Amino acid sequence: MTEDEVTEDDVELIAKGAAVLGAGGGGDPYIGMLMAQQTLRARGPVPLVHPRDLSDDAVVFPVAMMGAPTVMVEKLPTTEQFAEAITALSRYVGKRVTHVACAEAGGINSTIPVIAAAELGLPLVDGDLMGRAFPELQMVLPTLAGIAGTPMSIADEKGNTGILSSVDNPWSERMARALTIEMGCSAIISNFVMDGATFRAASVPGTLGVCRQLGRAIVQARSAHRSAVDAVVDVLNGRLVYTGKVTDVARRTATGFARGTATVAPLTGQGDTLTLEFQNEHLLAARQHSGGQHIEVSTPDLIIVLDAETGDPITTEALRFGQRVSVLGAPCDERWHTEAGVALVGPRYFGYDSDPVRAVRQQQEMVG
Amino acid sequence: MTEDEVTEDDVELIAKGAAVLGAGGGGDPYIGMLMAQQTLRARGPVPLVHPRDLSDDAVVFPVAMMGAPTVMVEKLPTTEQFAEAITALSRYVGKRVTHVACAEAGGINSTIPVIAAAELGLPLVDGDLMGRAFPELQMVLPTLAGIAGTPMSIADEKGNTGILSSVDNPWSERMARALTIEMGCSAIISNFVMDGATFRAASVPGTLGVCRQLGRAIVQARSAHRSAVDAVVDVLNGRLVYTGKVTDVARRTATGFARGTATVAPLTGQGDTLTLEFQNEHLLAARQHSGGQHIEVSTPDLIIVLDAETGDPITTEALRFGQRVSVLGAPCDERWHTEAGVALVGPRYFGYDSDPVRAVRQQQEMVG
Repeated sequence: MTEDEVTEDDVELIAKGAAVLGAGGGGDPYIGMLMAQQTLRARGPVPLVHPRDLSDDAVVFPVAMMGAPTVMVEKLPTTEQFAEAITALSRYVGKRVTHVACAEAGGINSTIPVIAAAELGLPLVDGDLMGRAFPELQMVLPTLAGIAGTPMSIADEKGNTGILSSVDNPWSERMARALTIEMGCSAIISNFVMDGATFRAASVPGTLGVCRQLGRAIVQARSAHRSAVDAVVDVLNGRLVYTGKVTDVARRTATGFARGTATVAPLTGQGDTLTLEFQNEHLLAARQHSGGQHIEVSTPDLIIVLDAETGDPITTEALRFGQRVSVLGAPCDERWHTEAGVALVGPRYFGYDSDPVRAVRQQQEMVG
Repeated sequence: MTEDEVTEDDVELIAKGAAVLGAGGGGDPYIGMLMAQQTLRARGPVPLVHPRDLSDDAVVFPVAMMGAPTVMVEKLPTTEQFAEAITALSRYVGKRVTHVACAEAGGINSTIPVIAAAELGLPLVDGDLMGRAFPELQMVLPTLAGIAGTPMSIADEKGNTGILSSVDNPWSERMARALTIEMGCSAIISNFVMDGATFRAASVPGTLGVCRQLGRAIVQARSAHRSAVDAVVDVLNGRLVYTGKVTDVARRTATGFARGTATVAPLTGQGDTLTLEFQNEHLLAARQHSGGQHIEVSTPDLIIVLDAETGDPITTEALRFGQRVSVLGAPCDERWHTEAGVALVGPRYFGYDSDPVRAVRQQQEMVG
């Protein structure tokens, strides 16, 4: 394995790490992993290019799955569909694709671009537009940089495609979401086509490398009988917020999203509980105590749920009663903490009356 | 006024006649009329070309409003939007538009193409794809002829546009409907781009002429103190089914359509009532009597509601308690009565357990 390509062996590590960065979202990493492994077995490794090595006139096409991960577990996309979203958009904008990229770092959306790049015989950029996963299309750093998210393409597994041009990035989300729902709650999209120089400025570099590093850290800690949870905390400079067992998960697939609330209680005896609010991704982790609630971490920082024993990430659609979990907070890309960033992805956008609460503060709390 | 162009004066007649052929659908003819008059005042008459005079290699772009007419009464489209739907599609398919056409004959969808043609400085074809109005995109004669409805364009009044490519024509309806709803329940579309020879074979010729003839017949009958209702029956070779007063209208704007049921009762005394079932257009007219119900006319034939006094057509969204109305049946294009036609637009498609009932049979019934 070299560090400048994605091999069949890398995919398992990337998928594991992507589910960590996905902050509960991004879909089932297992399905994306299997599909990517199958594709790489047939087509060989995919070259991985760091954004700093992109030529200024490179033409980068991000690609992603849109919809409710709860659905995609049952309605598998086709590998041709990934490439079709890109080629349809390429035809429309009249630009030859030189590189494929991840729109978000998270679950299946870190492996779908690997498949698309392999199908198209193109290199993949080691970077993404968020540094984590967020639930809506406009929630990317290019929006903060004033870059239009359209023209964008959308494709389903039946062969239906669309090219959308919107007046602003939230409208690209609205139109694509309406189509995604009609297409059966999952679709493949390509948007935010950028040249190399623009991509370099408006993306988070190295996120696939971080995914691989996270995956490796979990595997190595486990084989060395060390704590995989601690290993993830270390890689992300994060904080262990809570360890406990899942006692309740209320979920609903509404307006194309997997929404819900989970409650985590102490492993033994009485004590504060932790509630997790999610919309595909975890948005708010709040400690519930006798005097009310205290927000431990909120969007835009990452809230990550791991299996307390194995350190394996658990996506929101896989949360189940009785799971023993560790809940981590980790810092996001600092651009998300600007005023415009908070307006785009902060707690208030999602309906929570709170300023953002960072994962890591001066005094650290480690309880459970 | 010559017969080979649409003038500002023609528009009022066409709008009136189009509301008749619209069979209750196609939107408020008044708004479309005002917008078309304003456009023709600024840009002059639009040349009108009969399908028989189209050159085989003409490139015809149909254009229409999609959505719930109930909404469009309040959310006016812009005239630029009509042209934008066509030019967006023209850019995408890489074909220069030579002619604009009506997708349906009905209400605003007979005047929007006039506006689009005037805005683009192009001739309008005197024909449409249905010979009446139907509520869904795939319900056009080109579908029966095996012609794909996509690529199609969709545009809203804010500036959002989409290009859709579907695996079949019902999927073009599903995708465009989802976008239309998200865009606020009304949008402008262009679809079924055809060359002149194909358009000639897959369209109903002369429908704008029929609209003008209907409008003129109503106006002339009125000024001659003759029955405008009879004049309409004559022009369409139809049948007067019922005359009475509207006693109930139950309507709902659901999944982007104006759906509902209206009841018409005898003008005086007791007697059978008539129920009208509609989804944008009237689909079923059934006489309710002591022994049950008897379907008088059903889709695909036209069910037309006129003001009993003036002969002015009343669209489904304008039906009101207390209106005195005459309900007419009129034959549709005979291709709709083929097996494939009935499967596409017959009563069973809309959920009514009945074979089609033609407007005109051997023995005519004239009651009220």
